[in-house]
Amino acid sequence: MIVIGSGAKHLEEEIRRLGGRVLDVEIRKFPDGEKYVRVLGEGKEALVVQSTFAPQDERIVEALILGDALREKGFKKLRLVVPYLAYSRQDRVTKDGEPISIRAVMRALGLYYDELYVFDLHNPETLRFFPGKALNLSPARAIAEYFGEKLGDGVVLAPDRGALERAKAVAERLGLEYSHFEKRRISPTEIQMRPVDVDVAGRNVLIVDDIISTGGTMIKAANLLREMGARRIFVAATHGVFAEGAIERVSKAVDELAVTNSIPTPVSKISLVPDILSL
Amino acid sequence: MIVIGSGAKHLEEEIRRLGGRVLDVEIRKFPDGEKYVRVLGEGKEALVVQSTFAPQDERIVEALILGDALREKGFKKLRLVVPYLAYSRQDRVTKDGEPISIRAVMRALGLYYDELYVFDLHNPETLRFFPGKALNLSPARAIAEYFGEKLGDGVVLAPDRGALERAKAVAERLGLEYSHFEKRRISPTEIQMRPVDVDVAGRNVLIVDDIISTGGTMIKAANLLREMGARRIFVAATHGVFAEGAIERVSKAVDELAVTNSIPTPVSKISLVPDILSL
Repeated sequence: MIVIGSGAKHLEEEIRRLGGRVLDVEIRKFPDGEKYVRVLGEGKEALVVQSTFAPQDERIVEALILGDALREKGFKKLRLVVPYLAYSRQDRVTKDGEPISIRAVMRALGLYYDELYVFDLHNPETLRFFPGKALNLSPARAIAEYFGEKLGDGVVLAPDRGALERAKAVAERLGLEYSHFEKRRISPTEIQMRPVDVDVAGRNVLIVDDIISTGGTMIKAANLLREMGARRIFVAATHGVFAEGAIERVSKAVDELAVTNSIPTPVSKISLVPDILSL
Repeated sequence: MIVIGSGAKHLEEEIRRLGGRVLDVEIRKFPDGEKYVRVLGEGKEALVVQSTFAPQDERIVEALILGDALREKGFKKLRLVVPYLAYSRQDRVTKDGEPISIRAVMRALGLYYDELYVFDLHNPETLRFFPGKALNLSPARAIAEYFGEKLGDGVVLAPDRGALERAKAVAERLGLEYSHFEKRRISPTEIQMRPVDVDVAGRNVLIVDDIISTGGTMIKAANLLREMGARRIFVAATHGVFAEGAIERVSKAVDELAVTNSIPTPVSKISLVPDILSL
């Protein structure tokens, strides 16, 4: 049985269409701002789907009280899928006195859920903070499926070396070449990006990253590829945490921008629902 | 050392003025809506003050990441004062399928805090959900101090029998008489309220409750007291969870309305800070 939180409302239609059995829940807010949830059905095991984009704290607390309602109702095994997990970038102490906020979130979710599934977590090592079984799922199937035909015999690029595994996973599903950009300081004030060991002239290119926020790197990379003679330039990311105006800016610089539906945005055209339903 | 969360910012000036040693913290939001906190000081024990009025979920999550930052910084003992605890009225399953939301909140706070202090909790039995030591503090000192002189030799009333202990605690501090209202069905559609075993004619009256939201009960009680010849009518409550327009409506019906500063409102004239500093 699938339970759909307010942060997964945008996935409900597709989940139902693809045959997911959805357990009805009532989710609303009291006039004072407190969330109210109620589980309208029975069962022993549930897969709760709740993405935690803004207002992220509301969705985190909602996941907790949904878990409480399900336990109270007698559910024995609760699994939680969080397509986009808030606070995942607050994964280490950079300045003295900072929290590891993702640890607090993981621990709180662990109070009610036996298993946690996330997509393309910023730092997969932080899964250890979740007390139960925790898995980081790949967006590769979804991205490869969406861009496969458009790419043809193109090339898949990561914006930096750290993102290479993601690009590689997409490329290998499509039997395509892959590589990454590297940054080189060409003067005290200027850093140049260039794709490593790959010829892009006359070829379609897909750049794949985990999160797009301002989109600055993507635009820089796309402009460079254009100069190098690339044919069509596509940009994909798992999580579209777009800053104001970023969708428009990136869209203008490339042939197509698409992100997964971990967060609902106007360009969330890549669906993770089949991956969720296979859990 | 006292740590002041965003839900206790309105208490900071008084906490400092009354000699509280405040540990500096940085609390802000990232553009995507995630909270960021940073502890700017050292210590082994801290008393975190965080009231959880709206946006309540943000303040709950903030309390967790503040706790995480303090633990990471080496604090050994963390106590948490929550003057107004959100979700405290979601304390039981009224309809099948509901959560006990306050349990989820208590358990989450218990991940980081050794002790929990709240004021005038809706259902003190729910303190058992907090894994550590948990105490329900009385607003009686604060309310008695604020209204003592104004009341003179008046009487303290509870709006119903269930609220009698609170009225009694205030009255006993002032050496005054106390009683409560009772509701009596006088026709199939009409319920009459009346104060039990007390003569209010010519006397000042203070009605004390835990929460005022719409204020309907208070207004009804005040109008009745007026008819019965009461002199000055005061209304006090611990938590001013006012619905739209309620402050104005209640204020118009009584001589003075005042609530504690567990939630900052235009009538939060009764301070809990001395009680907090005595912890």
